[in-house]
Amino acid sequence: MANIALPAGVPGIRGPLTAYPETSAPLLALAQSVLRGNSPLSPAEREMLAVAVSVENGCLFCSRSHAAAARILFGPRAAWIDKILAGTTPEDVGEKLAALLSLARSVARSGHYANEPIVKARKAGASDREIHDTVLVAATFSLYNRYVDGLGAPEPENPKDYVAMGERLVSTGYV
Amino acid sequence: MANIALPAGVPGIRGPLTAYPETSAPLLALAQSVLRGNSPLSPAEREMLAVAVSVENGCLFCSRSHAAAARILFGPRAAWIDKILAGTTPEDVGEKLAALLSLARSVARSGHYANEPIVKARKAGASDREIHDTVLVAATFSLYNRYVDGLGAPEPENPKDYVAMGERLVSTGYV
Repeated sequence: MANIALPAGVPGIRGPLTAYPETSAPLLALAQSVLRGNSPLSPAEREMLAVAVSVENGCLFCSRSHAAAARILFGPRAAWIDKILAGTTPEDVGEKLAALLSLARSVARSGHYANEPIVKARKAGASDREIHDTVLVAATFSLYNRYVDGLGAPEPENPKDYVAMGERLVSTGYV
Repeated sequence: MANIALPAGVPGIRGPLTAYPETSAPLLALAQSVLRGNSPLSPAEREMLAVAVSVENGCLFCSRSHAAAARILFGPRAAWIDKILAGTTPEDVGEKLAALLSLARSVARSGHYANEPIVKARKAGASDREIHDTVLVAATFSLYNRYVDGLGAPEPENPKDYVAMGERLVSTGYV
């Protein structure tokens, strides 16, 4: 049961976004900018970082919905996302992306843990922009994870609903 | 020294907001909505919750800049903010606001810690809207705190700069 009254039949973050439209507009605009705006990191890579952070924060709804989007975006490499959901790093993801995953997981715990993984990411070839965008994805999902779990937003009753969510996040984005 | 290149002479969150304007627009719009939009919680109360969360996350820049704003907004009760900066709760803040402070600090640690403080806040008279807005302030500052500290954004050289920041946050807001 949710921690506050939320509309029936609207699982996950969509419950509070529906019930509180004044704050939902900037929350959605932020997701669109961070996950779909200009970046040297692809939408697939940013969705993967979002899943890694959501796993770190134990947010099942965010992990599963963004995993569904990331699987579609990664196509033949969709199996990577199973590793991310298990809290591990795919062996063939490349040195730079592995370092950015480590950075995102560190920032999920605290901004104060970023310095060392940033040094490693830079050595692995990451640019300032890639580091910035990774920190921002991690910080942004530290928000969404807390919003969803803090309000106790219910999960979808049917696990297959996540597939439909992933398709919508890929085709329509966050607007 | 910052973890990535940031513009000189622009301390705190204003550094990355200046260097990365595409994502700064939705980040600022979110702050304006969460801290200054319609809410049963006053801007003073929401700034106080933001300080409590920033202290919990150890974000000095966010703690001090929002403390400066909260002191102005609270006027004769400005001394409350010294208690918040020390991680404590003013004795005369009232049962409901004390419960919302406890909720915000819990959500700073994890969304999964919200249920019990929400039950207490409701018993102290908090409405669903007040609970929602408190969770959202806490979640939002879990973002900003990580963005500032994750990038290693430098603090102002002169501590008095925080007073000017607080005045600007009160007079102009986040737009």
